[in-house]
Amino acid sequence: MCRWLAYSGTPVLLEAILYRPAHSLIDQSLHSKMGVETTNGDGFGVGWYASDGAAGTPAVVREIGPAWSNRNLREIAGHVRSSLFFAHIRASTGTAVQQTNSHPFRHGRWMWMHNGAIADFHRIRRDLALAVDPLLFPDIEGSTDSELMFFLALTLGLEEDPPGAVARMVGLVERVGHAHGVEFPVQMTVAVTEGERLWAFRYSSQGSSRSLFYSTRVEALRELHPDMAFLREVSDETRLIVSEPLGDLPGAWNEVPESTYGVIQPGGDEMLRFTPQAQ
Amino acid sequence: MCRWLAYSGTPVLLEAILYRPAHSLIDQSLHSKMGVETTNGDGFGVGWYASDGAAGTPAVVREIGPAWSNRNLREIAGHVRSSLFFAHIRASTGTAVQQTNSHPFRHGRWMWMHNGAIADFHRIRRDLALAVDPLLFPDIEGSTDSELMFFLALTLGLEEDPPGAVARMVGLVERVGHAHGVEFPVQMTVAVTEGERLWAFRYSSQGSSRSLFYSTRVEALRELHPDMAFLREVSDETRLIVSEPLGDLPGAWNEVPESTYGVIQPGGDEMLRFTPQAQ
Amino acid sequence: MCRWLAYSGTPVLLEAILYRPAHSLIDQSLHSKMGVETTNGDGFGVGWYASDGAAGTPAVVREIGPAWSNRNLREIAGHVRSSLFFAHIRASTGTAVQQTNSHPFRHGRWMWMHNGAIADFHRIRRDLALAVDPLLFPDIEGSTDSELMFFLALTLGLEEDPPGAVARMVGLVERVGHAHGVEFPVQMTVAVTEGERLWAFRYSSQGSSRSLFYSTRVEALRELHPDMAFLREVSDETRLIVSEPLGDLPGAWNEVPESTYGVIQPGGDEMLRFTPQAQ
Amino acid sequence: MCRWLAYSGTPVLLEAILYRPAHSLIDQSLHSKMGVETTNGDGFGVGWYASDGAAGTPAVVREIGPAWSNRNLREIAGHVRSSLFFAHIRASTGTAVQQTNSHPFRHGRWMWMHNGAIADFHRIRRDLALAVDPLLFPDIEGSTDSELMFFLALTLGLEEDPPGAVARMVGLVERVGHAHGVEFPVQMTVAVTEGERLWAFRYSSQGSSRSLFYSTRVEALRELHPDMAFLREVSDETRLIVSEPLGDLPGAWNEVPESTYGVIQPGGDEMLRFTPQAQ
Repeated sequence: MCRWLAYSGTPVLLEAILYRPAHSLIDQSLHSKMGVETTNGDGFGVGWYASDGAAGTPAVVREIGPAWSNRNLREIAGHVRSSLFFAHIRASTGTAVQQTNSHPFRHGRWMWMHNGAIADFHRIRRDLALAVDPLLFPDIEGSTDSELMFFLALTLGLEEDPPGAVARMVGLVERVGHAHGVEFPVQMTVAVTEGERLWAFRYSSQGSSRSLFYSTRVEALRELHPDMAFLREVSDETRLIVSEPLGDLPGAWNEVPESTYGVIQPGGDEMLRFTPQAQ
Repeated sequence: MCRWLAYSGTPVLLEAILYRPAHSLIDQSLHSKMGVETTNGDGFGVGWYASDGAAGTPAVVREIGPAWSNRNLREIAGHVRSSLFFAHIRASTGTAVQQTNSHPFRHGRWMWMHNGAIADFHRIRRDLALAVDPLLFPDIEGSTDSELMFFLALTLGLEEDPPGAVARMVGLVERVGHAHGVEFPVQMTVAVTEGERLWAFRYSSQGSSRSLFYSTRVEALRELHPDMAFLREVSDETRLIVSEPLGDLPGAWNEVPESTYGVIQPGGDEMLRFTPQAQ
Repeated sequence: MCRWLAYSGTPVLLEAILYRPAHSLIDQSLHSKMGVETTNGDGFGVGWYASDGAAGTPAVVREIGPAWSNRNLREIAGHVRSSLFFAHIRASTGTAVQQTNSHPFRHGRWMWMHNGAIADFHRIRRDLALAVDPLLFPDIEGSTDSELMFFLALTLGLEEDPPGAVARMVGLVERVGHAHGVEFPVQMTVAVTEGERLWAFRYSSQGSSRSLFYSTRVEALRELHPDMAFLREVSDETRLIVSEPLGDLPGAWNEVPESTYGVIQPGGDEMLRFTPQAQ
Repeated sequence: MCRWLAYSGTPVLLEAILYRPAHSLIDQSLHSKMGVETTNGDGFGVGWYASDGAAGTPAVVREIGPAWSNRNLREIAGHVRSSLFFAHIRASTGTAVQQTNSHPFRHGRWMWMHNGAIADFHRIRRDLALAVDPLLFPDIEGSTDSELMFFLALTLGLEEDPPGAVARMVGLVERVGHAHGVEFPVQMTVAVTEGERLWAFRYSSQGSSRSLFYSTRVEALRELHPDMAFLREVSDETRLIVSEPLGDLPGAWNEVPESTYGVIQPGGDEMLRFTPQAQ
């Protein structure tokens, strides 16, 4: 399993979010509290959209070692600003530790990252791979369930209808899993973005999903904590979605309910029920 | 493209073959003379069967950096003896530089390494992947044509009939390639072994294959070079097969002809014509 | 801080010691119980003398990533036998994660590994470096206190009198530390060998040293556990020294007392008091 | 030896300089034309000052593998803009391939990179290390002559008087070298900056220095090549200094003479004679 973080809001140096909080994501790479594994040292990645508003694809930097000791990540985080970025730390459960298995994954303007697993993935991997659009198939570079889920979602319309495509992807994985006798095929929290909106999903076939939290609205937090300088510097729309809370600011974090997805977007965020769509 | 070397004979420290010759494989990683690329710095691997005669699988050590500067390879080569080993240096033509894309590949007791390419691999990768035995499919870890050729050969009977399985694999790749409009789908030199016998293939659809050489019989070499101490220490059966000659000992190297494969085996080596078998 | 293991005895595949025990060293890289850090993921190393009795230097393979996910370590461990080997997993406390900072360190036939730290090393590093024999100085490759302790011990006669040289090295570090106002300069467990004998030291200036254990004599263990097949396969002289016990076999592990060193050697092991020698 | 590039001028995406030219630095990592080695695959680094004008230290990203296959370098280069940056590709001549030996080196706001070597460095390394300011000594992390030259220059006043400090550093290295019987101790091209001005030095004790080139003034180039769009997008002050020319634009490159240094600075560049200053 893994830990991840998605940020949307006022452009900040990545380090303000990745390193400075008390229980930061980098700290979680060594000492996760809520993860299935306490250590997430099997690679990491960060993906960001340039803050100068340039259209185009995000930068994605991925590595195979632990995040906690990586000096290049610290350099980048200390000198790159972004208003929308993903960060992910990986704990492999056997799949090769290699750059192409580190998150986030990218396709054009889209980024995807995942915590969880497809149960018995080894057995159903081939059937899932066959369901990927033949035109997309050659772009699969790694061997993870996470990347394959991304390609299935792309196949099923991610770029037109993200929540629908993810619902169809999960429905497909559950159908294929059940056909192979897997009782609970899907366990996931997923974040996906095209650079403007950001979707985050929490779901598992068993109804017992990995943890997921979103930050309280900044204006409400400011009332709670009028003394915190950081809160005066960020816009009302700033949001974080995380596998486990950073720091321990009272009132700052709210659990995403089971079988739910959220949308962070200009004009008002939303939280909606997530239901897999049979394929 | 790449360079490779296969050794069979008197147990030696790997370094005697990998480092000591004048134009050694490690030297070729920086300065190949006959390769399509002069630099082969995108990963390397070495696979050996333990010289204490223990049955079982070979050790396979693979890395992602250049061989020439790798200290661990030098340590291993200086302390491990083997009577049958493979070594490979890689020059990627775009595929990810990652451990699971470095050669040799292993399946049970079998090792496989390759120099060359499947033309337009990106386009026909999916069709070839579908032809892999579903039980073997989940074990594919990398994204190279080389690994996929190995899995296709395994699917087509490598463990029972190596030359036949390779002929069927090549026939299959040519058929699928032609169906996609690829004129000359296969370009290869391949080495494969199960720890006792060693097969080496030179073939390309166009009849213009990458170079491949085998060493002259030791007893003949001894007559040519009675002063060379090394030749008195190795058995008559000792053989090397290489992408390009090591050193420049007159009379030491012979080119494997086009569309030919050789078998190194107890009781007498053989050289035979290689013909793809339509699938 | 770190964890380490030293083995001397019947030639075994490294994996029998590194991977198979319940709480193996590789397991400790993720979940140390007694270490200052629970994760030791900042590099590792293994050094072994070839089991074919060849004289000469040990092989030393060192890496910068975590041991738990390293496939090459597993390959080597599964195919290399040795009657005397070291293994070390590192948790950096700020020094660069690089191959030349991973243990064990080697000089000629000698290997050295360390758990602990020189307090305020940053401040006294230069004075210690100046105390290294000018002929040895250029061979320092890394930036750790551990390597510098090795070079100081070499300077002070390690090759002629290991316990005396280590006592002098510790005396020197304490004197230099005290001169800089460091109250407790040394914290260490150290293992050192030339391929035949093996010395292990436990000492700290404060008298509160990192843990160190040695295995019970094999013949005594056999009486305690007559059913354990492994114990029938190893010689009476087989010994392990470890930072923390492997497995939980009752009666198998004994703590090395404070300010003590042990010698594993043909003809009878010894345990003696360790006293720094003022320099 | 190595290859390097320094850019100062209109903010550009790093890739415009690092990847797009016909004979780019990344291309030189595989196929250098003028270097002592044709392959520069033993690590690389890039250092940049953020283009948003933020004061402070530059970002420095350094790696140990070849630049040509590094995906993260391409990501960074495609998404980071800077008006002042360094890039360096390394060919080791024996020193460890590790992150702390890759260029550029940084101290506070200052960056340093080097091509060349101190002759017989192994023998005079200790004496040079002793000449480093004791307060700076603990910050030495690697084992190269290049980093030590930087620390000596810092010791000798780099931050107040860069050309003078470099002259004193070279004078010191020559004196120490001569004292050890080294005839021609210094071979170097060096670039150094604090984020506003940029100094580049070409010197060798033998008067036979590694190549160094500076780009022609942009306004002159525009007259020569009125059709080149790129030239209309960059300011008149834009300058490149490189180990060997990028591309083959007639009139674009000028050799820096022997024993010369240049200053790129607001208000007018300069080229001056470089003379080591005896220490």
